[in-house]
Amino acid sequence: MKQSGASASSATFLNSSLLDAAQGRVPARQPVWIMRQAGRYLADYRRVRSLFPSFMDFCRSPEHVAEVTVQPVDQVGVDAAILFSDILVLLPPMGLQVDFKEGKGPVIANPLRDDAVIAALPEGNLNSELGYVFEGIRLTKKALGNRVPLIGFAGGPFTVASYMVEGGSSKELAKLKALMFSRPEVFTTLIGKLASVTAAYLCEQARQGADVITIMDSWAGYLGPNVYRDLVLPHTKRIIAAVKAEFPHVPVVHYANGAPHLLPHFATLGADVLGLDWRVNLGDALRAYPKQVFQGNLDPCNLYASPDQIRAKVKALKAEVGGRAHVYNLGHGILPDISPDHARAFVDAVHEE
Amino acid sequence: MKQSGASASSATFLNSSLLDAAQGRVPARQPVWIMRQAGRYLADYRRVRSLFPSFMDFCRSPEHVAEVTVQPVDQVGVDAAILFSDILVLLPPMGLQVDFKEGKGPVIANPLRDDAVIAALPEGNLNSELGYVFEGIRLTKKALGNRVPLIGFAGGPFTVASYMVEGGSSKELAKLKALMFSRPEVFTTLIGKLASVTAAYLCEQARQGADVITIMDSWAGYLGPNVYRDLVLPHTKRIIAAVKAEFPHVPVVHYANGAPHLLPHFATLGADVLGLDWRVNLGDALRAYPKQVFQGNLDPCNLYASPDQIRAKVKALKAEVGGRAHVYNLGHGILPDISPDHARAFVDAVHEE
Repeated sequence: MKQSGASASSATFLNSSLLDAAQGRVPARQPVWIMRQAGRYLADYRRVRSLFPSFMDFCRSPEHVAEVTVQPVDQVGVDAAILFSDILVLLPPMGLQVDFKEGKGPVIANPLRDDAVIAALPEGNLNSELGYVFEGIRLTKKALGNRVPLIGFAGGPFTVASYMVEGGSSKELAKLKALMFSRPEVFTTLIGKLASVTAAYLCEQARQGADVITIMDSWAGYLGPNVYRDLVLPHTKRIIAAVKAEFPHVPVVHYANGAPHLLPHFATLGADVLGLDWRVNLGDALRAYPKQVFQGNLDPCNLYASPDQIRAKVKALKAEVGGRAHVYNLGHGILPDISPDHARAFVDAVHEE
Repeated sequence: MKQSGASASSATFLNSSLLDAAQGRVPARQPVWIMRQAGRYLADYRRVRSLFPSFMDFCRSPEHVAEVTVQPVDQVGVDAAILFSDILVLLPPMGLQVDFKEGKGPVIANPLRDDAVIAALPEGNLNSELGYVFEGIRLTKKALGNRVPLIGFAGGPFTVASYMVEGGSSKELAKLKALMFSRPEVFTTLIGKLASVTAAYLCEQARQGADVITIMDSWAGYLGPNVYRDLVLPHTKRIIAAVKAEFPHVPVVHYANGAPHLLPHFATLGADVLGLDWRVNLGDALRAYPKQVFQGNLDPCNLYASPDQIRAKVKALKAEVGGRAHVYNLGHGILPDISPDHARAFVDAVHEE
């Protein structure tokens, strides 16, 4: 159990506000970052993206990963970088071919349709096939220097399982739920394997220099509370426990979209920070969980409004947060047609006195 | 203010369990119906549907509307019929052309992109252009005789506005929210007009014989609680008040998908019944609202499980409901690839002692 120097201490950084807030200390200036901040709304991102015909090839190029990961720190003024990558990088090491079709999202050539295939999936440490991610982390850390921390991430095991079973994005998650409701033991085999692969993957990210770990269980909100509690929660909990056992000082952020009804369960996960989307009234959540640090939760569509209107919304959020440690963010990823000026207005409004 | 005879009394029906439960009386046998019960999972529906190249032409044929509306009463054993129609029938009378593309959902040729166009939209009573719906109600009432009540419906004003502005289905409702967040007064003009058109439309449905009125504000859950409260709730409330003023004995059901966070607001709408999706723990909702009748809330994907597993889920739901009046239903529409046998297993399980 060795802790990497890079992730040990907030004193390492010129701007340690994210680490401070994530560990419950109220920094002088509260931190803000933006989900999908290294993304299509930035012209420089689009330029780098255009060098690669395939999205996965882009993810597999550590130099370009480092370049786009640092862009929003320089251009938008966020208080953390988040590694540019995708939650589906775990699929090829598990034997599933994934491709990103323009305008269609990810397409898996061989989705899981057979219980025997699920039983035969590999588990545990598959990091040897993910060297390009870790090289991306090392290069990004070099490029960032001691400016701001780097956030590493993986998909939550339910969300990754959804792509593996559905074969791509899905409106209802009908195939995955059919499996969960009719053969829960087969689903448990799948999510158990994913949990072990994800835990090993996230620990290696921290070992290579990720200062914060985020688990994006974006689609967990599709589940009712009892199903989530019985079939998903124990596995996410196990991932978080594995990271915290080896890297107790690396904050873990858990995020799910559209899941206000699961907040009582998320609060038991052992995460340092819980990401909220805009469906949750932040003031209510802060009152209900007096010791929990939250992240969020501006509706990404608020960034379509004018900079003045954005400032007013942020001011209202700040009034709700009061003196608590908080990680400001959108409630979901920034949309590709948002003006970078509006993203900056959001970040600046958080930083304003 | 004249009340139609058909909707006056539960004594009119051989099976009045829906009216009883919706009015808070516990019927001997609790009622069940299924959202989208006149739908593609039934072979006889698909046969009738195939007679029409266009979905809207199908909706405009009262004889065929009556035929498919009655099918699930005969074939699945539900305790109510719901008029086969679409929430977007209001668009042509308001000047928007709507077409249903196979596999793409509705496509609006002239979505609202201009504040002046919104200002010029008609409002109030547009029922003269909706005669085919009312003829469908009259024919269905004849076909049903006194067996079970007929549910009429309209879309909630937020959901209908979303199609008018987005031009079709949308993952983020980004255009609508951009309007709401940047020019709330223009959005208010739009939803206000929709509310007046919808109120007149639903009153005419009750006048023509609809025994229950449902408002499907399916996408309301995309909004945060404060935005919903400020910009949507007053308009939905006004629709419900208009129906109740003229038809006090016609129960009004309000339904939204993915909106557990809005339940405190829905409880103030004045609806007799609140539809819940599976994200809400039914037991918790019943305890939190001791006098409210709810509808729901089985996950539609539960119908992929075996009939024995379906019976076990329904048994658990019934245990939560206890002695309360309740309208059993799925938490969202039945999926097209569900076996009718499984739909019947659901209905039978509700009816079992």
